[in-house]
Amino acid sequence: MSLQSDHRIGKHAMLLLLSEDECNMPDCWKSCKGKVGTMDSQKIIAAIETAAKNNGIVDGDIYRETHALYHAIIEALHGITRGQLSIGSVLRTVGLRFSIVRGNPYEKQQEGEWIAVALYGTIGAPIKGLEHETMGLGINHI
Amino acid sequence: MSLQSDHRIGKHAMLLLLSEDECNMPDCWKSCKGKVGTMDSQKIIAAIETAAKNNGIVDGDIYRETHALYHAIIEALHGITRGQLSIGSVLRTVGLRFSIVRGNPYEKQQEGEWIAVALYGTIGAPIKGLEHETMGLGINHI
Amino acid sequence: MSLQSDHRIGKHAMLLLLSEDECNMPDCWKSCKGKVGTMDSQKIIAAIETAAKNNGIVDGDIYRETHALYHAIIEALHGITRGQLSIGSVLRTVGLRFSIVRGNPYEKQQEGEWIAVALYGTIGAPIKGLEHETMGLGINHI
Amino acid sequence: MSLQSDHRIGKHAMLLLLSEDECNMPDCWKSCKGKVGTMDSQKIIAAIETAAKNNGIVDGDIYRETHALYHAIIEALHGITRGQLSIGSVLRTVGLRFSIVRGNPYEKQQEGEWIAVALYGTIGAPIKGLEHETMGLGINHI
Amino acid sequence: MSLQSDHRIGKHAMLLLLSEDECNMPDCWKSCKGKVGTMDSQKIIAAIETAAKNNGIVDGDIYRETHALYHAIIEALHGITRGQLSIGSVLRTVGLRFSIVRGNPYEKQQEGEWIAVALYGTIGAPIKGLEHETMGLGINHI
Amino acid sequence: MSLQSDHRIGKHAMLLLLSEDECNMPDCWKSCKGKVGTMDSQKIIAAIETAAKNNGIVDGDIYRETHALYHAIIEALHGITRGQLSIGSVLRTVGLRFSIVRGNPYEKQQEGEWIAVALYGTIGAPIKGLEHETMGLGINHI
Repeated sequence: MSLQSDHRIGKHAMLLLLSEDECNMPDCWKSCKGKVGTMDSQKIIAAIETAAKNNGIVDGDIYRETHALYHAIIEALHGITRGQLSIGSVLRTVGLRFSIVRGNPYEKQQEGEWIAVALYGTIGAPIKGLEHETMGLGINHI
Repeated sequence: MSLQSDHRIGKHAMLLLLSEDECNMPDCWKSCKGKVGTMDSQKIIAAIETAAKNNGIVDGDIYRETHALYHAIIEALHGITRGQLSIGSVLRTVGLRFSIVRGNPYEKQQEGEWIAVALYGTIGAPIKGLEHETMGLGINHI
Repeated sequence: MSLQSDHRIGKHAMLLLLSEDECNMPDCWKSCKGKVGTMDSQKIIAAIETAAKNNGIVDGDIYRETHALYHAIIEALHGITRGQLSIGSVLRTVGLRFSIVRGNPYEKQQEGEWIAVALYGTIGAPIKGLEHETMGLGINHI
Repeated sequence: MSLQSDHRIGKHAMLLLLSEDECNMPDCWKSCKGKVGTMDSQKIIAAIETAAKNNGIVDGDIYRETHALYHAIIEALHGITRGQLSIGSVLRTVGLRFSIVRGNPYEKQQEGEWIAVALYGTIGAPIKGLEHETMGLGINHI
Repeated sequence: MSLQSDHRIGKHAMLLLLSEDECNMPDCWKSCKGKVGTMDSQKIIAAIETAAKNNGIVDGDIYRETHALYHAIIEALHGITRGQLSIGSVLRTVGLRFSIVRGNPYEKQQEGEWIAVALYGTIGAPIKGLEHETMGLGINHI
Repeated sequence: MSLQSDHRIGKHAMLLLLSEDECNMPDCWKSCKGKVGTMDSQKIIAAIETAAKNNGIVDGDIYRETHALYHAIIEALHGITRGQLSIGSVLRTVGLRFSIVRGNPYEKQQEGEWIAVALYGTIGAPIKGLEHETMGLGINHI
């Protein structure tokens, strides 16, 4: 594919969460990580949006950047929730770590920047230990 | 969590796809990997089921094993397709690598065996290069 | 509820499929039963629509009757497929019996006629025996 | 099918709700019934989980049992809500009776135990009488 | 189509929202308009139902009329939300205008009356200006 | 809102389909119209993508443009199909006209260009006349 092999933005985003090794991401890319535990989908979205703005990954004053990030988050949440975006309303809770990466995954300069949101953690009943792992990845042009 | 830290079955399944390092999975666990490129969801399911049977990860004669695997696959596909299980019918194509891991992720013996299906690859228009990365993970008790 | 206790159209429709006892449905109600086995959702819809027309339960020349029936069928299929209307495209097959009942479930005359579609059978892998039961019910005003 | 004709767990679960006849369920099977009226999906899930634990149908300390039950409940809710798991958030309310059955529906001993959750009642506007019937069935290996 | 060209109920409903021209709707049709801004799907449904009753478009005492309207609203909301009916729970807010039209769109008298619900406005983050347009249309027999 | 009142890209796109008046779209915007009748979602997507490329609205060699258009189409299809993207597989057929508009809907220059896809036509049984109207709108940054 025309995705450059060392520019795979989704893979980089997920390895930030899964691997302890130093990650050799391209220098000019921006990224950050965070955590959120909740029964409420909107808190996950808010936590990721806030982290992205505070770390200068998106400019909160430009709607197109917020819009791109929002859809990447929603796509990642589909992997987490697998069928319905609901969490607490179907009596589930999640404990997630997230990463956000912004960079240019394609060789052609015209493809510009893209954003990846990766999520990894647990989902389950609101009782400690009654949970299994869950993952999600969303990617959008920005 | 009561998930043992080195027994995270979903993380092991995804690292089999993303990382080139030797994976230190518990000895007694079973796993395999494969590839499938298609516009047709049912071919993804068939490829994973066939690999799981051929590698002795599930027993194809026992419905409860097939049933557990089937739902893990469908959950992983939700991460890949993000909202609708359709691929070709919405003019998309995927190129995926998959891994299947069977093992005991919990300390308590009664929790028994679970199965994880991880998917990583690209999704996009049926034209080379017009694609981005996609991931999915499904986990079920078996 | 203002549903008359012996006029529960959904319960009557499901008992037509589940029970061998004579069913004491109100005299003026119309009903029929049928069977369909397929991997293709549109064949289920077509089988039910054809049975409804051939048995005089709906008038195929009047769109509002077809429209009411169509939505009752789709709602029943949600119970069968539990999340996505797909069958064959996610490598499943079904063997279903169906019933259609048309009558007046409410005491008030103004509530007029309603239609119920009940489905009961098995869903599973396209291999004999690898299947479990499934049910669905759809109800609409007509 | 290899489902034994008198071991149809889903049919037994639904007849517990629909029929006044004594039900001739296999002796070794476990079952219970209950009721819940709410605008809130999570209360339905909680009511069923609580009934299942209190009646010894699942062991609440074993996650694999809770996990199996949870997915059976969610599948049954798809039949009730027909497209979106939401109830109150789309201004609907439900009055449901539920049954839970645990047993061995297959001849082969290796298929082990399965669990069925059946739901039957009404769904409609939060105004008495503006409602119609609804049903759902979920089945899972346990 | 057998939809009469000047009796297109959905087009009339949407033009009530989009166009400033006088609308030449058939004389005997009933219609009304309203507004709602919220993060809560149930408030949209309630606002439209209330407007329909207060303007004599549906009779709130007849369930079949409420049922027909309810499903038209839900279908229109699918166009607004594009994939999941959630609004606030996925951190979105909407500012909508709505119209409701009741009339006979088909030449054949037997087709009777139908109802259309049109929605037009903005959807976006709960921050002024971070929003784009959205539209939805639902149609049902009544 | 910061959407300029005469730059409402979604409204312009829908009025291109619904109104016979000359449309006073901003001069620098690009737009085109087309038609497609089919039981197959992928043909709708292909027809719109082809029209967009042939009319110079998107550059087919740049993936980010194709990606932006694709998601706008899928969002518009949600309004058309109202719950599941399927058409033929649930025994429906559509006759649609579509418009595509590319322009700058926001006052701030940094918001750049956006794309709107509007759909209007009929959906129904594959029998002439058994159909009602349907609409959809999708908007994305490009």
